[in-house]
This record gives sequence, C-alpha cells and structure tokens, in this order.
Amino acid sequence: MKLSNLHDLYLHKLADLYSAEKQILEALPKMIDKASNRELTKALSDHLEQTRTQAERLDRINSSRQFDTAMKCKGIHGIIAEGSETIMEIKDTATRDAQIITAAQSVEHYEIAGYGSAKAFADELGFDEDADLLEQTLKEEGEADKLLSKIALGTLFKDGLNEKAQ
Amino acid sequence: MKLSNLHDLYLHKLADLYSAEKQILEALPKMIDKASNRELTKALSDHLEQTRTQAERLDRINSSRQFDTAMKCKGIHGIIAEGSETIMEIKDTATRDAQIITAAQSVEHYEIAGYGSAKAFADELGFDEDADLLEQTLKEEGEADKLLSKIALGTLFKDGLNEKAQ
Repeated sequence: MKLSNLHDLYLHKLADLYSAEKQILEALPKMIDKASNRELTKALSDHLEQTRTQAERLDRINSSRQFDTAMKCKGIHGIIAEGSETIMEIKDTATRDAQIITAAQSVEHYEIAGYGSAKAFADELGFDEDADLLEQTLKEEGEADKLLSKIALGTLFKDGLNEKAQ
Repeated sequence: MKLSNLHDLYLHKLADLYSAEKQILEALPKMIDKASNRELTKALSDHLEQTRTQAERLDRINSSRQFDTAMKCKGIHGIIAEGSETIMEIKDTATRDAQIITAAQSVEHYEIAGYGSAKAFADELGFDEDADLLEQTLKEEGEADKLLSKIALGTLFKDGLNEKAQ
C-alpha cells in the first residue's frame, strides 16, 4: 500500500485497527475461558460484545472509505501472542487472573493509541461522521482499561492475591 | 519461567519492560533520523535520553530482584516492526512525521500499560522503592504521549499536513 498523504495514512490506520479488532474477537473468548474471578469474567464478556460493535463501526466507516480489510496488524499480534502464551502457563487461578488483566490492558492501550490517532486523522481530514464513531470506541476502550484496573486493585488484590498466590 | 504467584508475575513484567526498553533504544535513533519536524525531532531525542534513564531504573530494580534480562518482549517487537516498516515506505516528510508520531504513541501506550501493571504489582508486594521508580517512568511515558499529541495537533496539522500532503 502506497502511503503518500494523510488520507492514505488514515486508511492504513483503519486497516490496522480492523485487523486488531478481528484478532481480539478471536483471542477474547479464550481469555474469558481461562478467567476465574466473576467480575473479570463479566467485564471481559461485556467487552467481547463491545468489540463486536467496534468492529461494526469500522465496517460502517469502510462502506465509504474502502480500506484494506485483509491487512494483518503485527502490533496486536505480538501483544496477543505474548499474553496468551503466558496465560496458558499459569496454574494458580488468582495469578492467572492478574496476568489476564495485564494482557488485556496492553490490548486496550494499543487500541487507545490507535483510535486516538485515527480520530485525530479523521478530524483533520474533515470526516466528521467517522470521527464520531472512532471517538465512541476510543471512549469505550478507556473505560474498559479503567474497569480492569478497578477489578485488579479492588477485587483481586483485596481478596489477597498476593497472600494466596505466594 | 514458572509463573506461580504475583512475585513471579512481577519479575516477568519487569523482564518484559526491560526488553521493551532495549528494543526502543535501538529503534528510536532510526525514528529520529527519519523525522523532519524540529519539535518532533527534539521530543524524540529527549525521549531517547529519558529511555536510557528508564532502562537504568530497571537495572537498579534488577540489582535486588534479579529478573530475566535476556527475555524477548514480543509485544513491543510487533509494534516496532509494524511502525518501522511503514515509516520507511513514506516519502512525503509531513506524512512520515505523522506516521512516526502514531508509531511512537503505540510504543508509549504499551509502556503505559506495562508500567501501570508493574507499579500495581510492586505496591501489592510491598516493594515501595521499586514502585516509586516505576511510577516515575509511568509519569514520563504519559507526558511523552501527550507531547506527541500536542506536536501532531498543534504543529503538524496547524502547518497544514492535510493540505500539503494530499
């Protein structure tokens, strides 16, 4: 793909995020399956639903922008590969939940950075409707990240993950 | 590496961040070399210095914790590979600067997520000195991310990247 201007860069970023969402849709059910804490399982399940909506928003944008829907996002691939391998290795449930949270937060932050840029590009290009859709996802990702921190600090650690797991 | 408890997970996260810092120390000079905007070049050069300090902080933590300094962080590897490839493909300088900023922000966000978890783990484990060092880096990463957004929105876009680059 030739990248000559901001419009090309915008399409490239959308393609990257679309690939990221598809990879997350594959990875999340496996993470949910390995999670034990109820609040965490619920948060991840809710986020799976949200991820479907986020992918649909990109489909809507694609109907007018036609970005490359077959591109493979290497960034999220590395993050998911690293997180998944580690999750599989952990037997203790509370420790595994902590690892699931940190892996999921790396995914959220990849998306926060990506949607932040995509939204800024859309604003600059005057694609107001796209910018609104991207802003909605950006907001959801920020909230998902905060909820995961809350579960880690408020529940997992409060329940004595440290004491239980050492 | 066996991951049986929060302490193991903490060492694993430190090893991951150490590998990330080393990979960033290799990648940043190439990004600086490809950047054109003066504010961006300065921000990345300052961040290179900061990254050295951040790696030294992890060295300090390692002197008491002995984490694996040879582990390879796949997450940042994917992010850097993706960003670098794209940067090399872009000839227009303003468009390339925009891509450098978005790639650098993906790196910052990987670190924000990672240092956020590491700091929470250190707090939970009662490693107060570690937590202070990790908090310093976390703060710097947040500031670096904000500065990059400011450069994109305040300078690159203000100078008409969109008009120039289309």
